[in-house]
Amino acid sequence: MSSTIIKVRGYHLDLYGHVNNARYLEFLEEARWAMIEEKIDLGELKERGIGMVVVNINIDYKLPAGLGAVLQVTSRISRVGSKSATVEQSITEKRTGQLIAGALVTFVVIDINSQKVKTLDESLRKLLQMFN
Amino acid sequence: MSSTIIKVRGYHLDLYGHVNNARYLEFLEEARWAMIEEKIDLGELKERGIGMVVVNINIDYKLPAGLGAVLQVTSRISRVGSKSATVEQSITEKRTGQLIAGALVTFVVIDINSQKVKTLDESLRKLLQMFN
Amino acid sequence: MSSTIIKVRGYHLDLYGHVNNARYLEFLEEARWAMIEEKIDLGELKERGIGMVVVNINIDYKLPAGLGAVLQVTSRISRVGSKSATVEQSITEKRTGQLIAGALVTFVVIDINSQKVKTLDESLRKLLQMFN
Amino acid sequence: MSSTIIKVRGYHLDLYGHVNNARYLEFLEEARWAMIEEKIDLGELKERGIGMVVVNINIDYKLPAGLGAVLQVTSRISRVGSKSATVEQSITEKRTGQLIAGALVTFVVIDINSQKVKTLDESLRKLLQMFN
Repeated sequence: MSSTIIKVRGYHLDLYGHVNNARYLEFLEEARWAMIEEKIDLGELKERGIGMVVVNINIDYKLPAGLGAVLQVTSRISRVGSKSATVEQSITEKRTGQLIAGALVTFVVIDINSQKVKTLDESLRKLLQMFN
Repeated sequence: MSSTIIKVRGYHLDLYGHVNNARYLEFLEEARWAMIEEKIDLGELKERGIGMVVVNINIDYKLPAGLGAVLQVTSRISRVGSKSATVEQSITEKRTGQLIAGALVTFVVIDINSQKVKTLDESLRKLLQMFN
Repeated sequence: MSSTIIKVRGYHLDLYGHVNNARYLEFLEEARWAMIEEKIDLGELKERGIGMVVVNINIDYKLPAGLGAVLQVTSRISRVGSKSATVEQSITEKRTGQLIAGALVTFVVIDINSQKVKTLDESLRKLLQMFN
Repeated sequence: MSSTIIKVRGYHLDLYGHVNNARYLEFLEEARWAMIEEKIDLGELKERGIGMVVVNINIDYKLPAGLGAVLQVTSRISRVGSKSATVEQSITEKRTGQLIAGALVTFVVIDINSQKVKTLDESLRKLLQMFN
């Protein structure tokens, strides 16, 4: 399981003084990039012509996070299907341990040149299962 | 049903030249604010001490949108429960009619002073059903 | 002079309840895209292999803008030099007429293929002076 | 001098595959928050009713930064006047040492309650000079 720390700053907040809904999606994306580069050379993926495209995000907002909160985002690939896979991500306040948000992010793998969705064959499934 | 037009600009895009996942949530929020102010005086809501807090967003990304795309976001409240309600939103490319993204956004109504969730009583249900 | 209207929403604000500094740069960029497409076919520019790259932004923040403010962004090219040109932009609250922010945005024209800066010759100067 | 590291991700980029102009202002703000909390207890400032408001940003964009770039933002207060002070910030690519952007950010100190600008008296000047 991969883990990323983000400290909440003034520019992350909205009129209620809480991290805005859209900003959480950037936090989740930040954590997914970190997860991937822990184990994969992004240049290699690009050379193989492989891209990942998010097709669904389902996010629960549990508690608001304010200025100075220290958020820990954990990420792991929880499901690898034949056509798509799912990243399970949770955001907790590191000091209190409280769950701030939880998300399931489903993506497909595409061939960058043809922009077509690739079937998740044995080689791709192995790649993705590294992040379990 | 409420409708908002957004033209895709360079700063909306990400490394693939497509509108970024997080940015769509801003487009959806823009459209919800527009929907609300068509029928309700926001100042009045504030005086009544009523706030709305999003608790879940479930968004399907169907097709990418690039520079110059003209996006039409439609919004309506499709469900009013006893504790929460759901806004159904879709984003289509206005000229081609293609569906770009669809989302269900679930929210609760809170009392701003106590920060407690309010039961959706008859008066609140009527208010929300105006957006059906 | 080109003019764009932007209504301030909750997601534009920061912890003080005011539009965040970085967000104003998006408002300015939005207005520059609108200015350009009033008079130029962006596709034509692309075909000619011309791109514009911002090299300096100098922005004065005069007054804060809060939820519901209606901002009018005006833009015109105020200077065309031999190597660079400058867009003068101002953001006012439409209803009160108060100046919220003023900016000078300096850009160069590049050849998209070579990524080299182009001298602003007679033909380019004429193009840019249309926005005076 | 304070230093912050930011890795460029896909969601930071715009249609040219480069970090967007507005996003750099978030990077600068991130680095200013980090600078401040290295030496000052933000809670204490709040108790004293002191806020800082940016009145001018002058930023030079020198070189584009793309996916995977590792940006180092350095910040120090380079000028303390009687009414305003200036933070000098630079963004370099850590591995190549190339200057990506340089900025001067001028701010005033306000009394949060009255929202009035405070003269920078001896006590405030000493506080700000810690960041020289």
